[in-house]
Amino acid sequence: MRIFIDMDEVIADTYGAHLDWYNREFEESLTRLECHGKEVMHAVPEDRKQSIRNHCTTKGFFRDLTPIKYSQKVLKDLAIKHEVYIASAAMQFPNSLEEKSQWLDEFFPFIPWQNRILCGHKHVLNGDVLIDDRALNLHQFNGRKLLFSSPHNLHETDFERVDNWLEVEKLLL
Amino acid sequence: MRIFIDMDEVIADTYGAHLDWYNREFEESLTRLECHGKEVMHAVPEDRKQSIRNHCTTKGFFRDLTPIKYSQKVLKDLAIKHEVYIASAAMQFPNSLEEKSQWLDEFFPFIPWQNRILCGHKHVLNGDVLIDDRALNLHQFNGRKLLFSSPHNLHETDFERVDNWLEVEKLLL
Repeated sequence: MRIFIDMDEVIADTYGAHLDWYNREFEESLTRLECHGKEVMHAVPEDRKQSIRNHCTTKGFFRDLTPIKYSQKVLKDLAIKHEVYIASAAMQFPNSLEEKSQWLDEFFPFIPWQNRILCGHKHVLNGDVLIDDRALNLHQFNGRKLLFSSPHNLHETDFERVDNWLEVEKLLL
Repeated sequence: MRIFIDMDEVIADTYGAHLDWYNREFEESLTRLECHGKEVMHAVPEDRKQSIRNHCTTKGFFRDLTPIKYSQKVLKDLAIKHEVYIASAAMQFPNSLEEKSQWLDEFFPFIPWQNRILCGHKHVLNGDVLIDDRALNLHQFNGRKLLFSSPHNLHETDFERVDNWLEVEKLLL
């Protein structure tokens, strides 16, 4: 089985990093719970939105993300049994490309460069499963679509949902 | 029709850059003709091979490539009529990723980030045509395979061959 796995908010805690960076900059204590159903950007005052946008083009942002709980263990097991690819729509942020490669080297060294994809549209990918937090990417994909829960997608009802990596493990292993 | 187009030696003259860098470093005048049927690396003395290998991990190498003749004009026309993607197996050289993005911004600004793919294996790509100079990539692909001529692949006989972008234009436009 060929499985594509998104990076941000699926194996890398980009959402948590947005919150951390925001809280540090504005001396706030915004939590995931307060962001329920929203992007971080839509949970902050209008005049601070640009600050959130700037994170993604700031050196180091994508290099320092924390891996999502159990993602390393479950991906390692998945990669033994299945053909596993990382597929990130990273071309939007050219500054992130090398950082994402380095981050994968550090936290997912068992996924070789041949199985890493930095792209835009994901409907060009030909495989059996896509695990992603974005409805846009899942809508475009031909195979089985698993929506990985993130605060911003909690109201999304169009897809089979997985809340964490232990659920993915149960479904695919 | 969805068309995937490789970068190195298809729209970017990587082969020519290897020759230029080699000739500058060793004060030689090695030509494409002398490399007929070979990689540049296999046309130089054993003790200089590492120098060629080092090009790909040297800052600036992928940023300064010359576009292949007529590639800009023909891709622009192709992109009007077809769904055109750039697909480069660039994950092997993480240092090249941002340079390749910047290079596309400069020479192929009409191919948006959504249509750019930096990957490893190309058999995960789902489309109608792949234009590539590497037999390995073409073998893996499901659709129509066009081998773009480069000095290193001149003895390859397994694929439909295109010698230049005007031939691609005739075939696909």
